[in-house]
Amino acid sequence: MTMNRRVLMKMAVLAAGASALPARAQTNSRPGQTVPKSYRRIAVEESFSVPEYFEWRSKYVPTTTIGAPASAFKDIYARLFDLGSGRIAEMDANGIAMQVLSMNAPGVQAMPPADAAVMARLVNDRLAAAIAAHPTRFAGLTTVGPQDPQTAAKEIERGAQKLNMSGVLINSHTNNEFLDDPKFLPIFEALAANDMPLYLHPNGPTAAMEDTLKIPGFTVGWSYGVDAGTHAVRLIAAGIFDRFPTLKLVLGHMGEALPFWISRMDNRFEWEYRMTGKSRPLKRLPSDYIRDNIYVTTSGMNYGPQTRMALDVMGREHVLFAIDYPYEDNREAVAAIDAMPLSDLERSLLCHGNSERVFKLRKT
Amino acid sequence: MTMNRRVLMKMAVLAAGASALPARAQTNSRPGQTVPKSYRRIAVEESFSVPEYFEWRSKYVPTTTIGAPASAFKDIYARLFDLGSGRIAEMDANGIAMQVLSMNAPGVQAMPPADAAVMARLVNDRLAAAIAAHPTRFAGLTTVGPQDPQTAAKEIERGAQKLNMSGVLINSHTNNEFLDDPKFLPIFEALAANDMPLYLHPNGPTAAMEDTLKIPGFTVGWSYGVDAGTHAVRLIAAGIFDRFPTLKLVLGHMGEALPFWISRMDNRFEWEYRMTGKSRPLKRLPSDYIRDNIYVTTSGMNYGPQTRMALDVMGREHVLFAIDYPYEDNREAVAAIDAMPLSDLERSLLCHGNSERVFKLRKT
Repeated sequence: MTMNRRVLMKMAVLAAGASALPARAQTNSRPGQTVPKSYRRIAVEESFSVPEYFEWRSKYVPTTTIGAPASAFKDIYARLFDLGSGRIAEMDANGIAMQVLSMNAPGVQAMPPADAAVMARLVNDRLAAAIAAHPTRFAGLTTVGPQDPQTAAKEIERGAQKLNMSGVLINSHTNNEFLDDPKFLPIFEALAANDMPLYLHPNGPTAAMEDTLKIPGFTVGWSYGVDAGTHAVRLIAAGIFDRFPTLKLVLGHMGEALPFWISRMDNRFEWEYRMTGKSRPLKRLPSDYIRDNIYVTTSGMNYGPQTRMALDVMGREHVLFAIDYPYEDNREAVAAIDAMPLSDLERSLLCHGNSERVFKLRKT
Repeated sequence: MTMNRRVLMKMAVLAAGASALPARAQTNSRPGQTVPKSYRRIAVEESFSVPEYFEWRSKYVPTTTIGAPASAFKDIYARLFDLGSGRIAEMDANGIAMQVLSMNAPGVQAMPPADAAVMARLVNDRLAAAIAAHPTRFAGLTTVGPQDPQTAAKEIERGAQKLNMSGVLINSHTNNEFLDDPKFLPIFEALAANDMPLYLHPNGPTAAMEDTLKIPGFTVGWSYGVDAGTHAVRLIAAGIFDRFPTLKLVLGHMGEALPFWISRMDNRFEWEYRMTGKSRPLKRLPSDYIRDNIYVTTSGMNYGPQTRMALDVMGREHVLFAIDYPYEDNREAVAAIDAMPLSDLERSLLCHGNSERVFKLRKT
């Protein structure tokens, strides 16, 4: 690069970065202020839970997924259980206009089917009450127990039609079964019938993958992504988007590496079928489904280079802001996204426009 | 972004892109020409094999890893077996100065240990002869059978001291065992003693992961990356870089998604140990090993957004050009890398400077 090009690039980067500065200065340094309209921030993978679930859980599971004692999670539990003033104060302090709430992983998916159905109803009712009390600050995703697909389908319908829910969240596999198993079709039929996006959140590794993926220190940072990403790829390969072409699938953690692999997946998909001579079982290429049916969020991945890559390969209408509260820090996530050199349109779509559209949220 | 910023950004992008144009025009449109010195291209994950291996293989394995009949691979076999004029003509036609050659996956790792040792010696001797015949065009990586770690260690030493090899390539797991098993320590001791980088190439899924990862159409494009990436993460978690701080690990396919997850791995690594209260078993953070000990190549991933992200998170001295010949197309890979808006320094390091340093290659 000649000096002229270097200087131009530096000017452009500075110029682009400058658009973020006022927002950062306004929102991060003055807790409690109103979020400027142009930087409305909606965070879409934010966790809550109910004490009743942890009461059930404590009878069966002595430690948490990562092997920590429950006592270490005291502060996290307090934040999970707060669906009112404490949570909203933290949102205000960090310029977060709205949270799209979902039940803490693994939801009710580890429970016996009948217990899961009861707990899901309780959780969804509790969430609906919080949304009704704070309609400008909270939206929510329906919790279901895929253990019983028919009951899950009914709860999806209840969430959409009675509880004002904005989508459904499932924590990857249920009892080691992925959603590409035909037994789960009633769930997809209910999602399609009610036009509800499915947020596919990670779970711990399946029993088959546990020996390989329970890597100390990397359970969440690596293996959760392998689980959820593989699950999404299995859904694509099973033709779920050919069967349900309007289905919207939302993936956290910047798409669980699907944006990273997107072009290679096309390339090798075509190659594998060319070499085997078999006819392709899918109507379109992997990237077509990824770009049209899949939306990725920045939960736990509010990093500049990865966000830039996702925007470049997915398109600016398919990347949504998320934090992963209370597991990630609101302040750090907002500071990170504000500091990224995005265009005004990219920032606006990323921070609220896309989530308003995908989850059909109210715009004020 | 205001109009001023847009215009500046566009000018900068155009300016940056312009530096690639002369190279593209010079090298892609005139087959057989000399590669301009400033764009010397070294491709570092290029496959070869020997007919003797496929003779052995055909007795045991009726189809290839992806389920295609061997007959579909006729053209690929011809290219794999050519260590002379045909290969060099294809390199010349596409402006590739040098190939760093390695035995076609899964190497000798599927063979019984004694057969693997014999085949590895045959393959390495054949490769050494090709390098001796074309020292400016070929370099090579030693093939070993980790089935017998002591014999593999001796072959690493022979490759380094007698055969002029530039490193060692292992195709991920051997009989479902990853290299973090302490039984493989002699291999790492030999790598360290001979200052040989280890290229960790994917393999098919292990038996445990096969049901989950044998996804039709996505075996290579998704599951190979899961296998090799998980293998690399296991090596980090096992403290291999604390034990061998000078070890260089090379990962193909843009680092098998490690660059994508790098910051999240740090974040969740710190979090997991904070929550469990256990003391960390590693001296440094995951990203420290990834940035200092790991090098990634663009094999099968010559895509602009992913390359930009890898450069931004790994640093320009840790990304190396590769194609994955004959599975990927030389012409397309060169055109893609030439079209990327890189600085002159980035392009020079990516195309040859880094591979010359990491593999200690001759510079002309």
